[in-house]
Amino acid sequence: MIATEANFASDLLDELFPICRSITGNGVRQTLNILSRTMNLNIHEIPSGKHVYDWVIPKEWNINDAYIADHSGKRVIDFRENNLHVMSYSTPVNARMSFDELRPHLQTLPEIPDAIPYRTSYFKEDWAFCLSQKQLDGLDKNQFYDVVIDSEIKNGHLTLGDSLLEGTSGKEYLISTYCCHPSMANDNLSGPIVSTLLYKKLKERGHYHSYRFVVLPETIGAITYLSENETEMQKLQGGFVVTTCGGPGGYGHKETFQGNHELDRAVRLIFRDANTDLISYPFVPDGSDERQYSSPGFRIPVTTISKDKYYEYPYYHTSLDNKAFVTGENLALTAEYYMKAIAVLEKNRVYRSLNPKCEPQLGKRNLYPSTGGGQKQIAAGAVNSDINNQVDIICWMMFLADGKHDLIDMAERSGYPFEDISHLADRLVEEGLLELIE
Amino acid sequence: MIATEANFASDLLDELFPICRSITGNGVRQTLNILSRTMNLNIHEIPSGKHVYDWVIPKEWNINDAYIADHSGKRVIDFRENNLHVMSYSTPVNARMSFDELRPHLQTLPEIPDAIPYRTSYFKEDWAFCLSQKQLDGLDKNQFYDVVIDSEIKNGHLTLGDSLLEGTSGKEYLISTYCCHPSMANDNLSGPIVSTLLYKKLKERGHYHSYRFVVLPETIGAITYLSENETEMQKLQGGFVVTTCGGPGGYGHKETFQGNHELDRAVRLIFRDANTDLISYPFVPDGSDERQYSSPGFRIPVTTISKDKYYEYPYYHTSLDNKAFVTGENLALTAEYYMKAIAVLEKNRVYRSLNPKCEPQLGKRNLYPSTGGGQKQIAAGAVNSDINNQVDIICWMMFLADGKHDLIDMAERSGYPFEDISHLADRLVEEGLLELIE
Amino acid sequence: MIATEANFASDLLDELFPICRSITGNGVRQTLNILSRTMNLNIHEIPSGKHVYDWVIPKEWNINDAYIADHSGKRVIDFRENNLHVMSYSTPVNARMSFDELRPHLQTLPEIPDAIPYRTSYFKEDWAFCLSQKQLDGLDKNQFYDVVIDSEIKNGHLTLGDSLLEGTSGKEYLISTYCCHPSMANDNLSGPIVSTLLYKKLKERGHYHSYRFVVLPETIGAITYLSENETEMQKLQGGFVVTTCGGPGGYGHKETFQGNHELDRAVRLIFRDANTDLISYPFVPDGSDERQYSSPGFRIPVTTISKDKYYEYPYYHTSLDNKAFVTGENLALTAEYYMKAIAVLEKNRVYRSLNPKCEPQLGKRNLYPSTGGGQKQIAAGAVNSDINNQVDIICWMMFLADGKHDLIDMAERSGYPFEDISHLADRLVEEGLLELIE
Repeated sequence: MIATEANFASDLLDELFPICRSITGNGVRQTLNILSRTMNLNIHEIPSGKHVYDWVIPKEWNINDAYIADHSGKRVIDFRENNLHVMSYSTPVNARMSFDELRPHLQTLPEIPDAIPYRTSYFKEDWAFCLSQKQLDGLDKNQFYDVVIDSEIKNGHLTLGDSLLEGTSGKEYLISTYCCHPSMANDNLSGPIVSTLLYKKLKERGHYHSYRFVVLPETIGAITYLSENETEMQKLQGGFVVTTCGGPGGYGHKETFQGNHELDRAVRLIFRDANTDLISYPFVPDGSDERQYSSPGFRIPVTTISKDKYYEYPYYHTSLDNKAFVTGENLALTAEYYMKAIAVLEKNRVYRSLNPKCEPQLGKRNLYPSTGGGQKQIAAGAVNSDINNQVDIICWMMFLADGKHDLIDMAERSGYPFEDISHLADRLVEEGLLELIE
Repeated sequence: MIATEANFASDLLDELFPICRSITGNGVRQTLNILSRTMNLNIHEIPSGKHVYDWVIPKEWNINDAYIADHSGKRVIDFRENNLHVMSYSTPVNARMSFDELRPHLQTLPEIPDAIPYRTSYFKEDWAFCLSQKQLDGLDKNQFYDVVIDSEIKNGHLTLGDSLLEGTSGKEYLISTYCCHPSMANDNLSGPIVSTLLYKKLKERGHYHSYRFVVLPETIGAITYLSENETEMQKLQGGFVVTTCGGPGGYGHKETFQGNHELDRAVRLIFRDANTDLISYPFVPDGSDERQYSSPGFRIPVTTISKDKYYEYPYYHTSLDNKAFVTGENLALTAEYYMKAIAVLEKNRVYRSLNPKCEPQLGKRNLYPSTGGGQKQIAAGAVNSDINNQVDIICWMMFLADGKHDLIDMAERSGYPFEDISHLADRLVEEGLLELIE
Repeated sequence: MIATEANFASDLLDELFPICRSITGNGVRQTLNILSRTMNLNIHEIPSGKHVYDWVIPKEWNINDAYIADHSGKRVIDFRENNLHVMSYSTPVNARMSFDELRPHLQTLPEIPDAIPYRTSYFKEDWAFCLSQKQLDGLDKNQFYDVVIDSEIKNGHLTLGDSLLEGTSGKEYLISTYCCHPSMANDNLSGPIVSTLLYKKLKERGHYHSYRFVVLPETIGAITYLSENETEMQKLQGGFVVTTCGGPGGYGHKETFQGNHELDRAVRLIFRDANTDLISYPFVPDGSDERQYSSPGFRIPVTTISKDKYYEYPYYHTSLDNKAFVTGENLALTAEYYMKAIAVLEKNRVYRSLNPKCEPQLGKRNLYPSTGGGQKQIAAGAVNSDINNQVDIICWMMFLADGKHDLIDMAERSGYPFEDISHLADRLVEEGLLELIE
């Protein structure tokens, strides 16, 4: 299962990686079309110039080619080799210039001399080439260069996609990811790929709640989406921003603004139950689109499970965030953790004991093992037996089932896995010991 | 005083220890009769087959004799030597059998080769002998044995006792202990003996609240008692389950389900004030009869002060939990700690300052010492004096006496002993500085 | 600025130090007159014998001279050398007596043999000389001594001063200090001097709230003031008791009775922002006049910023608490910390976002830097730029501005200095992004 998904993820990464994406343009369209094969996205085109809250949809940017060529005509910097070489939203250029004239338009990252940095200039007209410090050092400072950026900025559209998996619970959760970065693997192809896996799994496995998948350019896309779907969005219970979740590093949990929301408790619980370390990142209002979803006018609780979180790994926003850094296995593994958290949301309920006075007799219901012996006995008035976990879990559940504790509370207070508790809840309902009240 | 009580406890232990008790039968009756000499118990007999909540009162079990004899007629295992040798509720047997036929009915505890384990089979018809691993190893595996259990299981009664010490406050607390284990000292003769001491002390010293003493078989007895006294039980403020409190180990505090109830605060305070270590055991729904009293339909806050708590000492539920393990001194000492906690409940009140604006002048009331000198002065406008604790305590009390803080709050926040605070409260009422409001 | 104030403080210390103060008498009047040059105090004289809550205004005490002279007429202990030599409120004496007769009236501090201790006997008629242990050791035990205390205790007045700096906010804060100790610098001339600096600074710099300055004898003075101004005092938001704040030691924060009041948060914040260590002293009902102001009938939240807090430094209440211990620089520095805390109270408000849905576009308002590059980007949809603090602070503020978080909350949660947050709040109001709601 995981192997199949790892292959699926790996193939999708191969296909999406070369595309030059930005916050608008054909790269986004191409990406959404590929994702849509699985996610069945509704594609929305919102015109340049449209006002969305405090913002305006920018002009659309597309690029065909770009290079810096030396006097011999050799391309010393070539967009076709790596689309990070051109600052996103660079205006067109076609000129011969001295190195000194060119220099202000060259950006490097001296700390990592092999890396091409990722740079953008969405809202200010400008152009630049990004290159590694080593490339810069190798350029002849006394030459003239032919500098070409064959790009176009004109009225067009911002493109985004959404897809709703409808459930029956009446509750809806958001799964949001962004698709506006050029050829970098962890930030941000890991987000769309894991989201695609989640869509696939939910569809295959079935689900109780509704899940709204959105794939959009970061910030301006989320703002646009909120603006266009204000009423629906205000009904959301909460959600996930899926980002930077395929690296080799540790798992991280960016907490919701609320800090101890059911979403946070679900995430902490599944990592506790999996005995896997989890780095806590308390909410801060930088980061990704939780900034928009959780803004005062919405306050949708949004959390992120990351693996090599943005800002935290050295290759962040560079050409070294590539397919050597992100593997299909890690993407599939992360998707499983998201699914575990979603499973907690799916199954978390409040039950009330139908046997609230004293404990029920488990023996007569075959819930109490009848063989064995041992030094720790649950009940002096019970069959002589091993105390196995099942009895202990049932005792906790029956004890807490006063209509004020949900299954997450039970898992937290008892220390037992949520999955076992959820499983036993069904059994105890069948036995007539619990009733579902919410 | 303590010496007298230690002797009393020691004598009672000697008298109760040999009796073979189970959850029903003559051993329970005999035990209750002995305790009743001090506690004046009302003995209740509830017939087999009666439904109590989810449970049914079992048949009554009695045993006269039991043994395994070898071919020479020698008893190699003899109930008359130790009543733990027979699994509680064993059905009658009278048969000659090979060792191999007998083996499935022999239970040992290989980890402690000298100990006979304690085993029961209340709700499933079965029989077994319990013996030490050493005894098992010494048996000739090629012999036939005469195996006799002269027991009887038939319709009869479950027996329990209660006794109410009525106070005048209108508040009632529970003191519950169980009496269903055969010859073991800490679990559970320590419970009935300490309860008896508490009854004796409360009767001798007087008391403000009412105290309901109950002595019953664990689990099924508590369920029966709750079922038979539902209305009265729902009026309880809280209580104690007295168990495993006479061993050589440290004091423990099993917290109430509520976790920070007045009962918990009282227990913590008296150990703080006595400068005695106390092991905290957060509530879990295994353990003893707090499982029934605090179940969702009752939620009576119940706590335990233990000394070598059940599950925690290696001799638990074995023949080594004997009179070498439990002493009269420890039983008397534990009873004093319970009495200290009860004294907190007896004396905890809410007072309101009759001098709420600014501090009172203590000097004119002879509450402020008039001699001495020193570098820490409470009040620049006060008589030059040592600051002794009394002044500091009074300052705290007058400061907190806003009708929202009880004496426990005052002891916790000031760090001063509850006893001193309670004592000074009376003095401050006499001085017209405080009035009792609750 | 600080230098000027340090000189001002130093000169005031020089002028006030020699005066013999007590809880009544001409020393207090002289002190209040000197302070009044800056603080424009209203001087109130309350007659001896008047009842103030539980207390009675004592008789007035004045002293002209006092000494112990040996047989040669030489003053071996001389009030003119140090007014601590006479216990405050000593009754008149004029007698020749043996050393043995004199001894019960001599008080020393053997732990610090060079120090004269400070002693008082306000409410019990008595007399004593205080001297260093070395002085006592040097006295001839076989001589007769002429012992003279030329003092007077008779009906008169208790003197105190107040001064109100009226603001426009409708909120009033208390700044209270005491002036009843003879020649000691930290306890308590540091209090009146820092209060005088605060008055001066508030008057010069302007202020939004009202500030009620009171200078009075400790305890009896505060009780009197509360009694005489009960209605006004009950309207106070809170305040400061300014005391022991000029020593060489660390800064301390005696917390309010409430413990986490706006005043406490303001004090903690300014020391956090200044990166200066602060010793926390949880509220206890000894100390200074917070005992009266925060008593149950008033519960005015009162805090203290100390520097070498009373009780905590070895020279406390001795002649070594002198001008070598307290400097003008330290007094000026402490006054600045008080002003910083007051500035937090002045500027703390609640704002509501006028752009609650999604984040505002900072670029178009020139709130977002347009140059630079870097690896940590606030907004993927924003101009390529360094993330400097200003953007991060604005993001926090806009995010928290839901009408439930004040500026202190914003500073605490974001970790950014209150001053920057307060400054940017004005800017964001100008930009139409925030509105003041409280």
